[in-house]
Amino acid sequence: MNFDFDGKSESKTKTTKSKSRKTKKVKTTAVAATAESIAAKQRDISVSEFFSKNRHLLGFDNPRKALLTAVKEAVDNSLDACEEAYILPEVAVTIKQISEKKFTITIRDNGPGIVDKQIPNIFAKLLYGSKFHSLKMSRGQQGIGISAAGMYGLLTTGEPVQIISRTDKRKKASHYHVQIDTSKNKPLVVLDEACDFELPTGTQVTITIEGKYQKGKQSVDDYLAQTAMANPHVTIIYNAPDGETYKYERQTKKMPFIPVEIKPHPYGVELGLLYKMARESTAKRLSAFLHQDFSRVSTRLAGEICKKAKLSKNMRPASITIKEAEPLHAVINETKIMAPPVNCIGPIGEAELEKGMKRTVDAEFYAACTRKPTVYRGNPFLIEAAIAYGFKGKEDNGNGDADKQPQMELKRSANRVPLLYQQGACAIHKAVIETNWRNYNLSQSKGALPMGAAVLLVHIASVWVPFTSESKEAIAGYPEIIKEIKLAIQECGRQLGMYLRRQRRIKQEMVKRGYIETYLPYIGEALQEILELKDGQVRTVVSRLKEVLEKTRQI
Amino acid sequence: MNFDFDGKSESKTKTTKSKSRKTKKVKTTAVAATAESIAAKQRDISVSEFFSKNRHLLGFDNPRKALLTAVKEAVDNSLDACEEAYILPEVAVTIKQISEKKFTITIRDNGPGIVDKQIPNIFAKLLYGSKFHSLKMSRGQQGIGISAAGMYGLLTTGEPVQIISRTDKRKKASHYHVQIDTSKNKPLVVLDEACDFELPTGTQVTITIEGKYQKGKQSVDDYLAQTAMANPHVTIIYNAPDGETYKYERQTKKMPFIPVEIKPHPYGVELGLLYKMARESTAKRLSAFLHQDFSRVSTRLAGEICKKAKLSKNMRPASITIKEAEPLHAVINETKIMAPPVNCIGPIGEAELEKGMKRTVDAEFYAACTRKPTVYRGNPFLIEAAIAYGFKGKEDNGNGDADKQPQMELKRSANRVPLLYQQGACAIHKAVIETNWRNYNLSQSKGALPMGAAVLLVHIASVWVPFTSESKEAIAGYPEIIKEIKLAIQECGRQLGMYLRRQRRIKQEMVKRGYIETYLPYIGEALQEILELKDGQVRTVVSRLKEVLEKTRQI
Repeated sequence: MNFDFDGKSESKTKTTKSKSRKTKKVKTTAVAATAESIAAKQRDISVSEFFSKNRHLLGFDNPRKALLTAVKEAVDNSLDACEEAYILPEVAVTIKQISEKKFTITIRDNGPGIVDKQIPNIFAKLLYGSKFHSLKMSRGQQGIGISAAGMYGLLTTGEPVQIISRTDKRKKASHYHVQIDTSKNKPLVVLDEACDFELPTGTQVTITIEGKYQKGKQSVDDYLAQTAMANPHVTIIYNAPDGETYKYERQTKKMPFIPVEIKPHPYGVELGLLYKMARESTAKRLSAFLHQDFSRVSTRLAGEICKKAKLSKNMRPASITIKEAEPLHAVINETKIMAPPVNCIGPIGEAELEKGMKRTVDAEFYAACTRKPTVYRGNPFLIEAAIAYGFKGKEDNGNGDADKQPQMELKRSANRVPLLYQQGACAIHKAVIETNWRNYNLSQSKGALPMGAAVLLVHIASVWVPFTSESKEAIAGYPEIIKEIKLAIQECGRQLGMYLRRQRRIKQEMVKRGYIETYLPYIGEALQEILELKDGQVRTVVSRLKEVLEKTRQI
Repeated sequence: MNFDFDGKSESKTKTTKSKSRKTKKVKTTAVAATAESIAAKQRDISVSEFFSKNRHLLGFDNPRKALLTAVKEAVDNSLDACEEAYILPEVAVTIKQISEKKFTITIRDNGPGIVDKQIPNIFAKLLYGSKFHSLKMSRGQQGIGISAAGMYGLLTTGEPVQIISRTDKRKKASHYHVQIDTSKNKPLVVLDEACDFELPTGTQVTITIEGKYQKGKQSVDDYLAQTAMANPHVTIIYNAPDGETYKYERQTKKMPFIPVEIKPHPYGVELGLLYKMARESTAKRLSAFLHQDFSRVSTRLAGEICKKAKLSKNMRPASITIKEAEPLHAVINETKIMAPPVNCIGPIGEAELEKGMKRTVDAEFYAACTRKPTVYRGNPFLIEAAIAYGFKGKEDNGNGDADKQPQMELKRSANRVPLLYQQGACAIHKAVIETNWRNYNLSQSKGALPMGAAVLLVHIASVWVPFTSESKEAIAGYPEIIKEIKLAIQECGRQLGMYLRRQRRIKQEMVKRGYIETYLPYIGEALQEILELKDGQVRTVVSRLKEVLEKTRQI
């Protein structure tokens, strides 16, 4: 862009008259508004208009990130669909460069496919999906991602999203071209026909977008490699725009933990929400409402809560008033209630985490910790952490020689999806820098990651991950979450600290032992001279001396 | 919350049988989904359900921040309304503590009022407003804020939003109680009656929310003080929950620059958007479309663009194809087009910025810089910066004694609204830490704010400020914006650097002069002894020597 601030190129051939006319036009001043004139301008804003104008909120800030985000949204959906249908996922990602800035990305999966009439809504309508209303761990949750990618493609290249999906091997596949009508947030179907598809069931989506391909950190390549690492049951075939093909074969045929949908846990449900849930409940009695609509509330406990709140357990929840909901809310939060069920969130597990680390980092020490599930705002979540320390050729020299050390590398993931952007805004980063790593024998500047040849992986699994923006790049800093992250990190840190202290002692020991080995012969010679010993006697004395000296310390 | 991980309190009185039944129930495993079973769960997500679940996106992460956010949204709206109607704003903020966690906040303004039928939508419907669709600098822009505050109030206390508004002194005011139906994102009117109001026109809104009142940084008090500073034409009366009343009288009766609504600038408009605008334009000819629907495109320039793009300037824009839009888009971005009009964004101005700084910081040096407007993605914006250096009692001692220095204090604002949270995620912070402050004689660690008794204020004014989340706390890192911030900072930095270098020279000079003053008498005595001078001669020699020595250097 070359701005012409003086407007010369615009007006140099014009007469003075036309110039002054133009100036006048530009300087049109504002007119005082009235309640009526403001009212005339008030109107609805469609959610897709909103996100189209705010597309950095969705991860489309710049061309390189846009390419990554589009791939990520499609792959996340593919993995979720396969796992929901108990199918071992095989995902093929193909990126082709059409022109300098224009790319097509195609993601094909072997999932259950998508039924015809849902395809337009899923790919060309924001805030539409199956995962938002269920409390269950999944990669997608908002019903925004893939439609947003399609919307960005439309915005930058004018091309519709192309979908092929097959739900039954006895039937042909459906082929759709759809695009979003941003003014209404509704799908427009451009093409709808039957076609062949090479897989018995599955979905293939193609989006044309303005993007930029560049390898390295935060690239599509990086994202796919990290995804393969966190999902050992997945096969990924990646045809990169440079013509290379990468194949990540699955490491296991065992399906990962398949989470179950749960009801909200009563802790952390706000008064207003409790009131709304009661008013809308299908239960006929208050105690039945508490028992049915929440997890971990037995009939007996429900009765107890009603009693303590001085409400009849037989009252109709639909007729509850806000004044009655208040004591109910207070009592719930004072009552001891069992922790939420664990089967709604699947940890990767300590053993698997360590294995995953070992696959990528060749280190001398590994530790992992999976915390018990807990709750923020009624949503169960759990935190896991794993640490790898001492890469080959990058070991800590034990002298606190921090200058030569690299900074710890932090890898974040949420519901098995790697998070590549906005580290500084993430609760995980906050918890790591607020942890005192000096306790664990790593040097650390205030407000910074510790130093050391270490990789720290932190994973949050939750039925609802609170991201700081719709682009799902960083976790919001809920105190309950930060606390759990710190506890998981500390557990890994303690093990690392013990290892490092022992290493340091061994090193010092080796140094001392080196001294003994070096100087004992001279002491022997001296003793021989002074005491006039024979060679054999000298050897005996020296070896005894060595034993005694070494016994006085322990490793 | 006291979790009972073993479920003991829950089942201790139960028989083994009931225990095993419960365990079984909890372990219900997931069932493999099919395309059909997934489709059955697909549904629309209302935008208010979305934000209710993601309310940290709106600035309601915790009770203290919630209180601030609710006040901020209401005050921003009041100031916008007054200024639009050319009324010098007088805003009264009253916060009352009802119980430990429950507060009512009431904001009353002397604006033009809101017409009856708009009140429910404005206060109880997300994505509704007058500012989203117009390119004009204003505090609010999204049509979310005040409804979100009301939604949070409803969620945490169950109370509706109360509004009194009067648009005409000859009529009574309208009194409404409204609440949002989150499942549908529609307002529910609970009360609607006429009432008296003490002002001829104006609006008063009361929200009851769960909050926490705590003074200090990032508090309501802090926000109101900073708002008064950035808006010298505003009177704010603040009745704090602790019973104190603070009054910020307006400093000037001059209205600030009132921005004019503009059309989008052609630079940065994406292909897809250009195509959509053309298809939906009311213009009959392509050249008329370019001239009418964009700013800074004269009829002549529009013709030139059509010609270069090899399109007839008489073609109907509504029938353009994406293939035709492509060369049009390319030519627009290659053509030199005048910078966007300045009257859509009002800078605070260098003089006003310095004055504002002087009002709050008693420093020894001030500098300010207002950049020319430029464009990101078609949206005009401009950056201003001001720096104050050397607080009383906190001066730089000139020895680079950085340890004792405080870190530079960064104040951010957007369209005259102070930004109090998420500094680390903000483009302004990024630009400041990426600037090499050592060039300007301040010490700085890598990736950190510089050290020194300095306050840096950066203001972005734009017709559309790209915030990193709906809570409007940080600016997204568009490269064009970061570049402009850096240029503004550098200008202030250069002036500060010159000042600091001169100060350092003066200091060194003073030290040298001190030496001369101290040692010249001794030299005099020595000369007297050696040359056997009289007292008068010594005085003459010493004073001549002093003159000569001082002449050899300049300040």
